[in-house]
Amino acid sequence: SRGGSASTAGPDMDDVLRRTVAAVPPYEMREKPALQEASSREFVQFYRGLGAAERPLFLTKLAADYGTDHGLVSELYGRVREVQSRDLGTLLQAEDRLRYSLTPRYKFLISHICRLEEGVKFIVDLRADILQFLQNKTADSPQLREMNGILKTLLSDWFSIGFLNLERITWQSSCDLLQKISEYEAVHPVRNWADIKRRVGPYRRCYVFTHNAMPREPLIVLHVALTDNISNNIQAIVRKDPSLETTEDVNKITTAIFYSISSSQRGLQGVELGTYLIKRVVKELQVEFPHMSQFSSLSPIPDFTKWLRGTLSFKIKEGKSNQIFTELEYKELQDIIEGPVLEKLQHLLSNNEWVKSDKLVRILETPLMRLCAWYLYGEKHRGGALDPVANFHLQNGAVIWRINWLADTSPRGLSSSFGIMANYRYFLEDANRNSVQYLRTRQIEASKQILSLVAQCQTISKL
Amino acid sequence: SRGGSASTAGPDMDDVLRRTVAAVPPYEMREKPALQEASSREFVQFYRGLGAAERPLFLTKLAADYGTDHGLVSELYGRVREVQSRDLGTLLQAEDRLRYSLTPRYKFLISHICRLEEGVKFIVDLRADILQFLQNKTADSPQLREMNGILKTLLSDWFSIGFLNLERITWQSSCDLLQKISEYEAVHPVRNWADIKRRVGPYRRCYVFTHNAMPREPLIVLHVALTDNISNNIQAIVRKDPSLETTEDVNKITTAIFYSISSSQRGLQGVELGTYLIKRVVKELQVEFPHMSQFSSLSPIPDFTKWLRGTLSFKIKEGKSNQIFTELEYKELQDIIEGPVLEKLQHLLSNNEWVKSDKLVRILETPLMRLCAWYLYGEKHRGGALDPVANFHLQNGAVIWRINWLADTSPRGLSSSFGIMANYRYFLEDANRNSVQYLRTRQIEASKQILSLVAQCQTISKL
Amino acid sequence: SRGGSASTAGPDMDDVLRRTVAAVPPYEMREKPALQEASSREFVQFYRGLGAAERPLFLTKLAADYGTDHGLVSELYGRVREVQSRDLGTLLQAEDRLRYSLTPRYKFLISHICRLEEGVKFIVDLRADILQFLQNKTADSPQLREMNGILKTLLSDWFSIGFLNLERITWQSSCDLLQKISEYEAVHPVRNWADIKRRVGPYRRCYVFTHNAMPREPLIVLHVALTDNISNNIQAIVRKDPSLETTEDVNKITTAIFYSISSSQRGLQGVELGTYLIKRVVKELQVEFPHMSQFSSLSPIPDFTKWLRGTLSFKIKEGKSNQIFTELEYKELQDIIEGPVLEKLQHLLSNNEWVKSDKLVRILETPLMRLCAWYLYGEKHRGGALDPVANFHLQNGAVIWRINWLADTSPRGLSSSFGIMANYRYFLEDANRNSVQYLRTRQIEASKQILSLVAQCQTISKL
Amino acid sequence: SRGGSASTAGPDMDDVLRRTVAAVPPYEMREKPALQEASSREFVQFYRGLGAAERPLFLTKLAADYGTDHGLVSELYGRVREVQSRDLGTLLQAEDRLRYSLTPRYKFLISHICRLEEGVKFIVDLRADILQFLQNKTADSPQLREMNGILKTLLSDWFSIGFLNLERITWQSSCDLLQKISEYEAVHPVRNWADIKRRVGPYRRCYVFTHNAMPREPLIVLHVALTDNISNNIQAIVRKDPSLETTEDVNKITTAIFYSISSSQRGLQGVELGTYLIKRVVKELQVEFPHMSQFSSLSPIPDFTKWLRGTLSFKIKEGKSNQIFTELEYKELQDIIEGPVLEKLQHLLSNNEWVKSDKLVRILETPLMRLCAWYLYGEKHRGGALDPVANFHLQNGAVIWRINWLADTSPRGLSSSFGIMANYRYFLEDANRNSVQYLRTRQIEASKQILSLVAQCQTISKL
Repeated sequence: SRGGSASTAGPDMDDVLRRTVAAVPPYEMREKPALQEASSREFVQFYRGLGAAERPLFLTKLAADYGTDHGLVSELYGRVREVQSRDLGTLLQAEDRLRYSLTPRYKFLISHICRLEEGVKFIVDLRADILQFLQNKTADSPQLREMNGILKTLLSDWFSIGFLNLERITWQSSCDLLQKISEYEAVHPVRNWADIKRRVGPYRRCYVFTHNAMPREPLIVLHVALTDNISNNIQAIVRKDPSLETTEDVNKITTAIFYSISSSQRGLQGVELGTYLIKRVVKELQVEFPHMSQFSSLSPIPDFTKWLRGTLSFKIKEGKSNQIFTELEYKELQDIIEGPVLEKLQHLLSNNEWVKSDKLVRILETPLMRLCAWYLYGEKHRGGALDPVANFHLQNGAVIWRINWLADTSPRGLSSSFGIMANYRYFLEDANRNSVQYLRTRQIEASKQILSLVAQCQTISKL
Repeated sequence: SRGGSASTAGPDMDDVLRRTVAAVPPYEMREKPALQEASSREFVQFYRGLGAAERPLFLTKLAADYGTDHGLVSELYGRVREVQSRDLGTLLQAEDRLRYSLTPRYKFLISHICRLEEGVKFIVDLRADILQFLQNKTADSPQLREMNGILKTLLSDWFSIGFLNLERITWQSSCDLLQKISEYEAVHPVRNWADIKRRVGPYRRCYVFTHNAMPREPLIVLHVALTDNISNNIQAIVRKDPSLETTEDVNKITTAIFYSISSSQRGLQGVELGTYLIKRVVKELQVEFPHMSQFSSLSPIPDFTKWLRGTLSFKIKEGKSNQIFTELEYKELQDIIEGPVLEKLQHLLSNNEWVKSDKLVRILETPLMRLCAWYLYGEKHRGGALDPVANFHLQNGAVIWRINWLADTSPRGLSSSFGIMANYRYFLEDANRNSVQYLRTRQIEASKQILSLVAQCQTISKL
Repeated sequence: SRGGSASTAGPDMDDVLRRTVAAVPPYEMREKPALQEASSREFVQFYRGLGAAERPLFLTKLAADYGTDHGLVSELYGRVREVQSRDLGTLLQAEDRLRYSLTPRYKFLISHICRLEEGVKFIVDLRADILQFLQNKTADSPQLREMNGILKTLLSDWFSIGFLNLERITWQSSCDLLQKISEYEAVHPVRNWADIKRRVGPYRRCYVFTHNAMPREPLIVLHVALTDNISNNIQAIVRKDPSLETTEDVNKITTAIFYSISSSQRGLQGVELGTYLIKRVVKELQVEFPHMSQFSSLSPIPDFTKWLRGTLSFKIKEGKSNQIFTELEYKELQDIIEGPVLEKLQHLLSNNEWVKSDKLVRILETPLMRLCAWYLYGEKHRGGALDPVANFHLQNGAVIWRINWLADTSPRGLSSSFGIMANYRYFLEDANRNSVQYLRTRQIEASKQILSLVAQCQTISKL
Repeated sequence: SRGGSASTAGPDMDDVLRRTVAAVPPYEMREKPALQEASSREFVQFYRGLGAAERPLFLTKLAADYGTDHGLVSELYGRVREVQSRDLGTLLQAEDRLRYSLTPRYKFLISHICRLEEGVKFIVDLRADILQFLQNKTADSPQLREMNGILKTLLSDWFSIGFLNLERITWQSSCDLLQKISEYEAVHPVRNWADIKRRVGPYRRCYVFTHNAMPREPLIVLHVALTDNISNNIQAIVRKDPSLETTEDVNKITTAIFYSISSSQRGLQGVELGTYLIKRVVKELQVEFPHMSQFSSLSPIPDFTKWLRGTLSFKIKEGKSNQIFTELEYKELQDIIEGPVLEKLQHLLSNNEWVKSDKLVRILETPLMRLCAWYLYGEKHRGGALDPVANFHLQNGAVIWRINWLADTSPRGLSSSFGIMANYRYFLEDANRNSVQYLRTRQIEASKQILSLVAQCQTISKL
């Protein structure tokens, strides 16, 4: 790292940009770009050498100084208007030049970089940087936001499903792949190599997408359990003793449980991969197990706890605690909680101690399940489900099928959703219709269990 | 094939298009396209079922009815103007919407198709169809031309170098690959399997680019001979008895001769692959043979005969035969040709019999070599070299190094260029500079041999 | 090749042998042989450099001078007798030393050679040489015959089924493999690459055994046709237009026809590979086509013509022509053959012209089929079937199922068996029992068709 | 496991053997064995089902009842004597029958088993069982010992170098392979996955032999460190922080240190693999690093401590302590040890505490190094070096090059050899000669350092 002295020593950022960002080729030469390997390589090396403090500045400069030529856009639009009444060919030509003029200049640089070895990976990581700068505000300009959008579109093209390889990961797969998969596993962390061996062993499947231009890098990982019913507990899946069963009995396999899906490239945020991975895996499984009849996720509910705490605080402030619990529930709570119930409860739920009290566990089940159903079904963000996992599976055409009490009693599970997990179930024949419907009308499909819990909640809680 | 009855039986084209061409997703949902697998598949199957007569019509409809929404473009440009004086973020947003509006609707269909298995190959073949329709005028509309351009840009992105795999082909490679390579070899046709075995055997290299989304399909093929000098004869390369030498003597290898480069996908016309393939192969060879010092093509001159015939006719008509030959040459010709020299000569050169007369061969060498040098160096098309092979190598940064008499005495070689072939030589350290210079200024680099021949020609011939 | 001057120039054979044939390690060191790479390599290179005339001499020397030490055998057997009444341990020790002493000295050389790269292939080829020398009498000594036997046993161990790899060959397989398979195909020669493509295409399978120590060398090749009945014609299998059917309809596949099996290493003569290959392939096919119910060969009858000619000659000499044909048959023949029937017939059958006469074809069918059935079933060699192909399939447990008229009308088919081919059918549940029975009692299993023809023949022909 | 009730329930051992051990094929049919798949499989399954107590009994029966037919041997030897004076062919024939008669009957069973899937692995494991029974005396009969020898010879043939594959193991290798390699590492145990990653990472190489008939099973593993000098410390090799260096600098690599070699199949005991593995790896390394000039092991001295303790005890008993230390050394020891020096020292050295005293470490270095040199060079077993590691490397042609103080300070290193390790160095041009010399004359090659220490020891110690 070149550290803070970059501004004085080393080549000046502006100089580097001037030298390395290719000029926009004339419209006529647009498919015959001169080779720019040396300067692309210089750009990459310079960027890699930049310190953490310099990168935001450098990218901000790039986005600002080498973007779209607004004057040219204006001029070419003028031309479009001019020829509008002329013959169609002329109009289309003018439109195409306008279209070309809307390509930011840095996009040509990116095209050149992606031709370098590991160039695609560099671009993916560059976008990861931008996302981080925008998030932590170390850099924030309209042009940088625009560059982020341009990159997202570009990466969506590059990582389009037709260019991805589906790979099944087993214990015979390469160690470096398995190590990466272990590290990327965000949903139910892999503790050791016995864990990962279990997750690629009998009654389990692990699939990844890879891309030719980024060899040995899993892009997204899907873990599947093969069971005979829709699982209601994650520990049974990820912790079960692997020594017990060594060969699969095909007759016991009727159900595929998607119990973890993790992106492994921050720079591909917003590039749809999960939906396609699930679709492809369903097809693979149907070939391997022609009689498989049930497909469902067993999913975390990452922010239910956070949402409920917020809601509790609000109700306490407003003095409307009766909108959370039924009278009977409230009374039961009063019986075992000393002092002001809601306040104390709020404290109790802020750590995971409550789960050790069988009584509390029994009393809380009904209200928490009811509230959770509502949270998944009723709370919205831009019209869709507030919960990102629910939103993902609903977009894919799944149904909110079931929520499960004490399904994840790990500290993580308790902290994020009081141990509740959700099954989003895929009815293959309906999935496409559901997906289209949800994307268009935001209408959520849910099972009777969920709808009934939601109805109870609406009666009781006024949320 | 559904033949001519398509209009009555089968689903109506308009119906199919209405059903299968996806709507443009709203700007906000642009990276979350609903899955369209079923309808994309229907489109593909419908198209494949269409007869040769129906396809042009169908594509014309697609291009015309599902292109860019000009009204929307107009409206969004209005919006850009409106916000021009507002903050930059708003302007960039408006511009991005304008950019999005310039995406023709059929591009979304194409994106969906490329997600199907063999979808990419379908699009490549679809463009091959369009190119053929446009060429033979079975279809020709401004929108179809626009669609061709859109596809070319798209394919240029998809088949960008970062996504291609370089493969060396040997006699151990898969038979289906070798068969395809034999069939695609356009420059010096492969007559039988001994031929192809020779071309992948000792002192030869054969490289292809492949793309993950089109498995088992070579995209472009480069044949290289490893020699100790710059070859001046193609038969020595492609016909030499393979049994003679079985292991390579590294010490005899100083030179790489690119003696054939063939595209194998018509639909990728205009998508630059050859330039990158040569560059990559040079790198491979430098790793394998660190002391390799000369890189050159041995290339055909496809239309020299045609051009010379045209020129002769013109000179005859104009009565300026003395502008072709020197007096001495003319006299020598007179000595062995009875009757009007130029007319007779024109006839003589129209078949390949002249090569059997040692005398004619001797007399013609000087004037034909002189004229050929001029043809390569002096004849232009849009500012660049008229000869497409010369233009290709010059764009890549090569130098016109040498032309060789009796270098290809096959019927094909005689017919296209009186047996003359050209060496375009690559000086690695200059190639990039030459390429940029040629692309910008159209200035051609040539050796002394060539320049001297050109000078002679200019003195004598007034061309 | 060192040619005839070997005796004067070059190292003397005896010298080379003295230097390169390792001493027998002492019994105690028998599993710790000193490394002999250099001398083994010298042996290999010397042998390769020998001319065709010198090799027999050299191997004869090796076999004679570096074989078993008869004196030592005698001495050690004395020791066995001596300790016979002592404890068992001592006896077994003595026996083991006797066993060790029976190892010819050249066997240690062979063990060293097989450790060299391509050493195993060298030994296989060496045995091919020995077999040829013994056959054409260029060398013939008891010791060379013994060496042949020792090598056969050794190769039988090395090429034991547990060390072989089964590979399915397809059009995607390596060209060098496919070329070798084409060349090795002895039964129905491959004429061109379309032929071989057909034989690895739809409705066909091609399997080979390979051995790790001989990479890229098929050891034995089995061609299978997938049909819906037991084929009676080979041209239908090997010549059918490959363009007609491109994808297999699993429902049409009920039967596997083994229509060609060819060894490809002469040096492995007598090493059983075919039996195991057929067994393994049957298993593969059963996995791929669980409903496959019929397994049969369609086999040539290589020497039926030769046998029949011999028989005819004999009968003519003996004047017992009526023992070949029935009276009616004889009469019919007389009607279309002028002159002495048998003599003329003998001439007629000596070329393949008779097949052009529909009449002759019709008349000859019955007697030739009858005689052929007898030839396969009744003619014996060392107790087993005289016909080597029949003997092979009977050893494997097959049944002589059917003979087919005009089944191979190629010149080769007509010349060897008047166009008749045989089906040897494998009933999987009986194959093992049949095999054991045939190996022990030489009893041949045959179908009713065959037995009935045999009975007719016995009635008429007195063979 | 069938447990103790095997004798009453289940099939009787004798029955099973009678049914599954194939008869010896007649001499004439020796290369056409009937297929025995079913019975071989039965044998394997029966054996696998046997309890730990039954297996020794079963194998003892097999060895005793299905071995060599001594009567037949006797008879056939009689025949050899009979024909001794007859022609050579007849004698060789008789000898060959004698040879065949010396094949124990169970060897045919073994040949059949090795044709089964995983059959070879079964035989290897069977021998591992026999070795264990013989070692712990659960079974011990002359015939079982003979069977062990027969199996060893057979496995030596099967696992002959020509049939082995050399594989380099990297972090990209399959996880199951890397896990097995970790588990098999006996010399310097792998503690975790960072350890193993280090051992296949930069400046390290890891090679294994595998055999086709035992897929996914490393047979023997060699770990190599690439350094710039002959290492004198193992912790520096196996514990160094892997994050420090990520790419190899070829210029820093002049030396290959073989720091661990582990067999991984007990059943292959006595089958020479290590020697060949080292030879092959040296070749690989020479190709990769043409300028590599030094090859050496860094080896443990497994029983030096044990030997020294025995020697000390003896000297104490004999009252000859002055034969171990010089007067000066003894005095220095007296200064820091209270009470009877040798007795106390004996105790001190029985745990690893002494290493914590800098004084003791300093005082002990000279005498322990001297004694260790003697132990390696002077102590003998059957004429060769007593130390098995020394014996192994000397057989391979290495030289005892150096012993290193505090080279392995792990508990294991201290316990086995007071932390001393040895370098056995390979001078490639001499290795073959050294090997032959050592195998024949037992003469040990050693460096001046070693010889000088040995001389000192001989002066002082009378060992």
